[in-house]
Amino acid sequence: MNHGAGGEAMQEFLDRHVFPHFPKMESEVPLSSLDDSAVVDGIVFTTDGHTVKPLVFPGGDIGSLSVAGTVNDIAVMGAKPLALSCSLVIEAGLDIGLFESIMASMGRTSKECGVPIATGDTKVVERGGVDGLVVSTAAVGRRSPYLDHNIAVAEEYRRFDSQWTSDDNVRPGDAIIVSGTLGDHGIALLSFREGYGFETVVESDVAPLNGMIEGILKVGGVTAMKDPTRGGLANTLNEWCGKSGVGMEIDGPSIPLNGAVVNACEMLGLDPLSIGNEGKAVVACVPDMAEEILKALRSHPNGRNAAIIGRAVESDRPRVVMTTEVGGRRILEPPIGDPVPRIC
Amino acid sequence: MNHGAGGEAMQEFLDRHVFPHFPKMESEVPLSSLDDSAVVDGIVFTTDGHTVKPLVFPGGDIGSLSVAGTVNDIAVMGAKPLALSCSLVIEAGLDIGLFESIMASMGRTSKECGVPIATGDTKVVERGGVDGLVVSTAAVGRRSPYLDHNIAVAEEYRRFDSQWTSDDNVRPGDAIIVSGTLGDHGIALLSFREGYGFETVVESDVAPLNGMIEGILKVGGVTAMKDPTRGGLANTLNEWCGKSGVGMEIDGPSIPLNGAVVNACEMLGLDPLSIGNEGKAVVACVPDMAEEILKALRSHPNGRNAAIIGRAVESDRPRVVMTTEVGGRRILEPPIGDPVPRIC
Repeated sequence: MNHGAGGEAMQEFLDRHVFPHFPKMESEVPLSSLDDSAVVDGIVFTTDGHTVKPLVFPGGDIGSLSVAGTVNDIAVMGAKPLALSCSLVIEAGLDIGLFESIMASMGRTSKECGVPIATGDTKVVERGGVDGLVVSTAAVGRRSPYLDHNIAVAEEYRRFDSQWTSDDNVRPGDAIIVSGTLGDHGIALLSFREGYGFETVVESDVAPLNGMIEGILKVGGVTAMKDPTRGGLANTLNEWCGKSGVGMEIDGPSIPLNGAVVNACEMLGLDPLSIGNEGKAVVACVPDMAEEILKALRSHPNGRNAAIIGRAVESDRPRVVMTTEVGGRRILEPPIGDPVPRIC
Repeated sequence: MNHGAGGEAMQEFLDRHVFPHFPKMESEVPLSSLDDSAVVDGIVFTTDGHTVKPLVFPGGDIGSLSVAGTVNDIAVMGAKPLALSCSLVIEAGLDIGLFESIMASMGRTSKECGVPIATGDTKVVERGGVDGLVVSTAAVGRRSPYLDHNIAVAEEYRRFDSQWTSDDNVRPGDAIIVSGTLGDHGIALLSFREGYGFETVVESDVAPLNGMIEGILKVGGVTAMKDPTRGGLANTLNEWCGKSGVGMEIDGPSIPLNGAVVNACEMLGLDPLSIGNEGKAVVACVPDMAEEILKALRSHPNGRNAAIIGRAVESDRPRVVMTTEVGGRRILEPPIGDPVPRIC
């Protein structure tokens, strides 16, 4: 199960059993960079398979999740999502009312973010052939009309080495911002599935972020963005450290967390920073623009709890050092697998 | 099961339970046209979910199938496929040797057709969560560099009403050509799965067709193309009749069929013209160019058995009339569902 969990075990699995078989490609952002999206001939392109269990959960369902997750992967590249595809694999006998409510949710989320579902495919397999419904979405996008402005603002302060807000573009000094509370999605899912009861106070944060992200590109100075899905903030920051060749200093107490998520994680022995989110962005930016970007994030409903949580630093070792509430320091390790399976 | 079988039952299912929930979109070729690909802002975009059973079959596997099927959906629009995405949903415990052989097959097919796998996603679900492996691929493409030439040649003879070789562009008089024998994929799959023994002489035709299709666009005069997958030739021709508002006269004896497929279909009570293919194209073209296009198809290994099988005609009713071997005439109905499930 860890091989599909988005952490280090998956990276090793792909490096060993998948990538060696695929032809090498030349492109602006290739598969091998494992960024949120690839860029081929100016087309930003990404895909996600959704196997969330159960199909409907507090705050969302596989329909809203599949649209938002894929739109967000395009948006965090500094791109404008243009269209979605939708491949459905349906288990024969799936309740038609449930199915229609999921399609309605996809439609609503597609309308909310202004990205139409342009093409699709439908397969039905016999009972037991799939666990209810699998939704695989892909999306295409183009360079955001505000990305050049964003880069120009950043370049008033330092070189912008990428053409995109990609994972390899964080530099020492960059401020690190999160757009809101972390861990809500994974804890809502886990609690609802296992009946722990926290789901009455924690809802999934699933939301398309393209509007909020456009807002901060208009401000300018963003250097990298990522949606911290599987593996959570811990995975995002460690990926940035590895790909950008920097270290990070994170101020633990400044990380926004929902109290019920903290309680649930303490009871269950989980780290909220390793739990997946579906409606949050982690943003790196030149330090002088951090306050303005924070303000733009907070002006959007999906970013009202945004906070500056630390900065990138020069380091021989690409690692994340976090100060804790009691003034100690710990290394924030990348998760090996995902502590909460089947959340997306 | 018929709701996912590619025939009339699926069309009704989508019209009733899916499309009403999705926002209407403006685009050159929208979802509602149900063509092989959508076209959005010049980007040709398509997706396919693959649930073939078993994962490996005579002549191919889910890896070659998923690459070829999606590349072909782009190519038949008159477009050049640029990149693929690959979303894997893996059942925990799937044999790693089998998995790697499928990845190697994807890689080989990607290399063969010159279309890289640019982006992907990997999920692992517990045993029983999925039947071995589901592969959902999407692809993006751009207008073929030979499409304008193709249209110019066609326009020497009649108006070309589309900007693409789309399903609504067949006109009375157009010649109908198939690129080779029909029904091989579905019969190979069915026979292998059920142990009928025909699979020793019938292999799947799974193959990427973008090279062959580029060859006929260079000749020019092609008006519509489609890969006759689920529902086979019967589905393709009836879709064209409906969307283009024409009838068709098809010469049954001229349709290329593998003898073993004919035998298998007779024994099993199936119509080879309703059986799915994965390496064939159906081509409509202006009549004066038919012989040259046929020659170009036959010069390619995947088109060596190509044949002209009939023509589109003026008709009040969008139906396909077929002359039979004994000189009779029958209506070739669109299949309701798919006679052979889980073939793609």
